[in-house]
Amino acid sequence: MRSNPAPARVLVVAGTHGNERNAPWLLDHWCRHPGALASCGLDLELVVGNPAAHAQNRRYLERDLNRCFDPALLADPSLAGPDLQRARELVARHGPEADVPCLVALDLHSTTSAMGNSLVIYGRRPTDLALAAGLQARLGLPIYLHEADTAQTGFLVERWPCGLVIEVGPVPQGVITAQICRQTQLAVEAALEVLAAAQARDLRLPPQLLVHRHLCSLDLPRRPDGTPAACLHPALQHRDWWPLQPGDPVFTGPGGEPIGFVPPPGLEDQPVWPVFVNEAAYGEKGIALSLTRRESWPVSPGWLQALTELASQLAQRGAPL
Amino acid sequence: MRSNPAPARVLVVAGTHGNERNAPWLLDHWCRHPGALASCGLDLELVVGNPAAHAQNRRYLERDLNRCFDPALLADPSLAGPDLQRARELVARHGPEADVPCLVALDLHSTTSAMGNSLVIYGRRPTDLALAAGLQARLGLPIYLHEADTAQTGFLVERWPCGLVIEVGPVPQGVITAQICRQTQLAVEAALEVLAAAQARDLRLPPQLLVHRHLCSLDLPRRPDGTPAACLHPALQHRDWWPLQPGDPVFTGPGGEPIGFVPPPGLEDQPVWPVFVNEAAYGEKGIALSLTRRESWPVSPGWLQALTELASQLAQRGAPL
Repeated sequence: MRSNPAPARVLVVAGTHGNERNAPWLLDHWCRHPGALASCGLDLELVVGNPAAHAQNRRYLERDLNRCFDPALLADPSLAGPDLQRARELVARHGPEADVPCLVALDLHSTTSAMGNSLVIYGRRPTDLALAAGLQARLGLPIYLHEADTAQTGFLVERWPCGLVIEVGPVPQGVITAQICRQTQLAVEAALEVLAAAQARDLRLPPQLLVHRHLCSLDLPRRPDGTPAACLHPALQHRDWWPLQPGDPVFTGPGGEPIGFVPPPGLEDQPVWPVFVNEAAYGEKGIALSLTRRESWPVSPGWLQALTELASQLAQRGAPL
Repeated sequence: MRSNPAPARVLVVAGTHGNERNAPWLLDHWCRHPGALASCGLDLELVVGNPAAHAQNRRYLERDLNRCFDPALLADPSLAGPDLQRARELVARHGPEADVPCLVALDLHSTTSAMGNSLVIYGRRPTDLALAAGLQARLGLPIYLHEADTAQTGFLVERWPCGLVIEVGPVPQGVITAQICRQTQLAVEAALEVLAAAQARDLRLPPQLLVHRHLCSLDLPRRPDGTPAACLHPALQHRDWWPLQPGDPVFTGPGGEPIGFVPPPGLEDQPVWPVFVNEAAYGEKGIALSLTRRESWPVSPGWLQALTELASQLAQRGAPL
């Protein structure tokens, strides 16, 4: 049980990365015309994640905001910087212990990869799995389950009791397209439907959840001086969510010579599914693509129970708790 | 006639915009493996346009380098800034009056618009028109003729006696793809073929040149506070080089309502051809797309003569002038 008994809201964050422009543009529209987003009666908190980066059309100013939510980082008084300060501010203003608390966070992103309309969840929290299962049942969205990756931590939604990323692409950084906006809105509205159904104790989940579980990431082949010696092979461009077999072309040198996929140790036996293929922002992180395994999990009754309990604490507009 | 009698080179510039990554990656390869670019024996100067912006993966630092080459800007001692200084440096080091002069500039760009493999020329210099005609005859590339646009001036290639932009897309900023690299290399090699043929007095031009002549640019509809009230209509996304008729959908509000094309005064009578549709970097310039008129021009014998004369001053490797 929360120590704070105030009715809670759903946090909807757009522009956590300042050069992803579609969701912030939509959010601005929703703020001007509250009826434009079907909220199923839930009280929402609509927030631009990194307004300073958004104003400069840059992913972040000094530090990737969506890697700032590690508890140790947030609590370290020796660390400052505008992005980390913004992370602290978001938690203070809209976290589960805030005066107007939020219990669920929907973090809206776009990508240059052909992820389509997709979800990213972090770890295996029952509430997240229930929300993702409800969304997958409604829209069929693929799910990237990010876990066990010590190089990538501190994601925003991890600091809320329930939350996921809605990740839509392909779209260049800095570009707004009607299709990406439409997909984003569909996913947000479906998530709110799931939460409202859970609150009404009326949510039904499918028997199985299909996840793409993170295994590892691949960097481009690099020269001794660190510069890339190859780029992505054209046969793999825009092939997110498609299986990759040993020997399939993955990279290509500047002269066009293909470089085949050599599975990392332990991954030789089955195909893997690439995600975030050639995402512009991941070059600096040394990620040309990430590899996942496609798995079908039985949906546990405990997931539904956890989300139902959480959703019972959400405010319903016109019906105070 | 040039005052400087040194044999001249062809300047090939990549990364004039620091977040356009394909050409600089190719250029790095060409520098490491000179045989990787078929130069037809011409002496080349391979240069990264804006290394400081490239290092930061940003279009520019303070001022768009590809708008810095206005003679008044270059000469104004009261103006400084790293991008303008770099423009001055490029002219001093590689301009037609430099110690190792360049007489032709090929400036390699990429775009988020679906321009395909295309050329941009600025004004109607006979040398540029001949080079573009030779390229169009070889590869069929469409040509955007930029002129009479007081809002957009100071392009790099204008400071060399002959030059054009090779513009390839769509590709997101910050992303390298094999296809964009391949298209870029094809266009560069074809341009060098044309120049070498002109030097050998062996260039033949087609009877007609097809150009898309700049008319004007359209901005997004905006609210009184300057924020965009609409985005590009999905029917127009990636429709560069396709004719647009009055009433065709151009923009759409956040709710999906279409906004039809109303031709600006004087352009009601014939279709127009959009280019640079939804280019990410042009949002800040207030350009959602530019409109052109498709025109077929007879190729003038004077163009060939001008380019042949210019090309005669280029160094031929192993064959000093």
